[in-house]
Amino acid sequence: MSNPANKTTELLDGIKARNPRSIARAMSLAESRADAGSKGDRDFFAEIYRRAGSAHTIGLTGVPGSGKSTMVQALAKKFRALGRTVGIVAIDPSSPFSGGAILGDRVRMGDLSGDDGVFIRSMATRGALGGLTRGCMETVDILDAAGFDVILIETVGVGQDEVDIARAALSVLVVSAPGLGDDIQAIKAGVLEIADIHVVSKCDRKDSHKTVSELKGMLTMGLTGRNRPGQKHSWKPEVIPTSAQTGQGIEELVTMLDQHLKHLNTSGERATRQQEIAEMRVLKAAEDIARQRVAGAQETAKDNAFKGVNERTIDPYSAALELMKNS
Amino acid sequence: MSNPANKTTELLDGIKARNPRSIARAMSLAESRADAGSKGDRDFFAEIYRRAGSAHTIGLTGVPGSGKSTMVQALAKKFRALGRTVGIVAIDPSSPFSGGAILGDRVRMGDLSGDDGVFIRSMATRGALGGLTRGCMETVDILDAAGFDVILIETVGVGQDEVDIARAALSVLVVSAPGLGDDIQAIKAGVLEIADIHVVSKCDRKDSHKTVSELKGMLTMGLTGRNRPGQKHSWKPEVIPTSAQTGQGIEELVTMLDQHLKHLNTSGERATRQQEIAEMRVLKAAEDIARQRVAGAQETAKDNAFKGVNERTIDPYSAALELMKNS
Repeated sequence: MSNPANKTTELLDGIKARNPRSIARAMSLAESRADAGSKGDRDFFAEIYRRAGSAHTIGLTGVPGSGKSTMVQALAKKFRALGRTVGIVAIDPSSPFSGGAILGDRVRMGDLSGDDGVFIRSMATRGALGGLTRGCMETVDILDAAGFDVILIETVGVGQDEVDIARAALSVLVVSAPGLGDDIQAIKAGVLEIADIHVVSKCDRKDSHKTVSELKGMLTMGLTGRNRPGQKHSWKPEVIPTSAQTGQGIEELVTMLDQHLKHLNTSGERATRQQEIAEMRVLKAAEDIARQRVAGAQETAKDNAFKGVNERTIDPYSAALELMKNS
Repeated sequence: MSNPANKTTELLDGIKARNPRSIARAMSLAESRADAGSKGDRDFFAEIYRRAGSAHTIGLTGVPGSGKSTMVQALAKKFRALGRTVGIVAIDPSSPFSGGAILGDRVRMGDLSGDDGVFIRSMATRGALGGLTRGCMETVDILDAAGFDVILIETVGVGQDEVDIARAALSVLVVSAPGLGDDIQAIKAGVLEIADIHVVSKCDRKDSHKTVSELKGMLTMGLTGRNRPGQKHSWKPEVIPTSAQTGQGIEELVTMLDQHLKHLNTSGERATRQQEIAEMRVLKAAEDIARQRVAGAQETAKDNAFKGVNERTIDPYSAALELMKNS
């Protein structure tokens, strides 16, 4: 009676019905399964993937201390007030030791958590080798397949995987805060170019106008945004000053996000964006498959390969090639 | 006369002679070549890998604003004063647009750059999909094969790749600064556990004792360090207060690094550590190979696969599997 196929159907039905327990169970599977996982897992996530694609996915990124979590919360509340359901995925660079969410997003978002039109998931990066991007994107797929209207994906805008995850959304917000140090501003530059919309947080602070005008200056100079020379995107990123304290700018931000989605749909750029995301996901899946093949190689072959690399009688590339061949 | 084999031999000879131009040329190759690259490139880096393995590689990581660059500079000067040659690799999360080193490490380290016992390389993360870890580790291999005694590898301690890169060193320093915000401290927790030595920077500041005692507290509780329960490492991480301004702690830090290397060598843990690094490098190489196979697939097959994923008639995993099969 409870054969695997039935269980899968049950889980898929639960997700479709937006049952929080089903959603959470599928997410745990996405997060915990080894890279490419079993055939059953793969079929399950392939089905989830086919059912996804309707949500407005929004990536929020910014350096530590930029106020991303607060912005996610403010946006979620505003979307809820408009009657839209909201999924939230927060990537925590938390300890591989604790395995838990150190930033405590679930706690911070406490006043949203009683609302069944909101589903919040914090993901630990866990220090695992690879698999973060896949796990995160599958988590987003689950919320998408469950029919959430908007999915907010919060990542620290430092690190390749984290930036990739944000970039895999239909709209990308980069959050900047006034008064951060030089080092931090420099790092921010790494994510500025992926922004569809720039959000400046903490604009109740006096020094915020400086951050706003710096960003506007960079936009004028064409130094940021997907619309820079040589790119075919026609959307012009804007800078929106906000304050979670006073509520400034949040409504404008939601309007701008709606405009951006509309722009993607009417300009044909949605297809381009989705094509880029599709390519990235295939590449990430290929990486997963490669790791799986190495992991699945014969124990003796693996031991010999790792020993050879350790002793430098063989280089990592040749060893990897050998292990992938045999599996 | 100038056939590829001769060129390779020349480049290898130049590296062995610690010729800066040869080193820089090899590094550009490591950074720019597509994932696994051509057969010639692979053979070159396989040879470099075989020649490497003698240097004391030291990973320095910490959140933005923790003072890592300053620490790298102070350490490099101290090592030079002891007559040791120093290679420095700094991973900049700089803009994929500028492609350059925004943090300006080369500029900051100006007073070291006239010294031919020092070689400094800033690497951009470039926003490329993958390849960062490989490129960085090959850059370290080049310095290692060139015979530098110590190689300092500076990464922002946020993001999976960045943490992996630091972890691939024989000794790992995690740099913490007093007075950083909550968000930042939380992120720091993600790298605390990989530390062999904790360095607190800016200890000329009054509030630094708080950071020092917090870290010592975490160590006492066994919450950080590779020596936590269930792990076989017997090294006990220590906390070293430092100040680049007063010079406090830098000598102690160098002594501690020497002790750590000695500990690795005498305890047999060097083998364990190197084995872990070997495994990681094989996995990263496998990922490169996978990306290369997808990229090398027939154009029509790729177009169809990406289109199918975009339209959700096929999932990313199945598409990747198909493309890897055909190439």
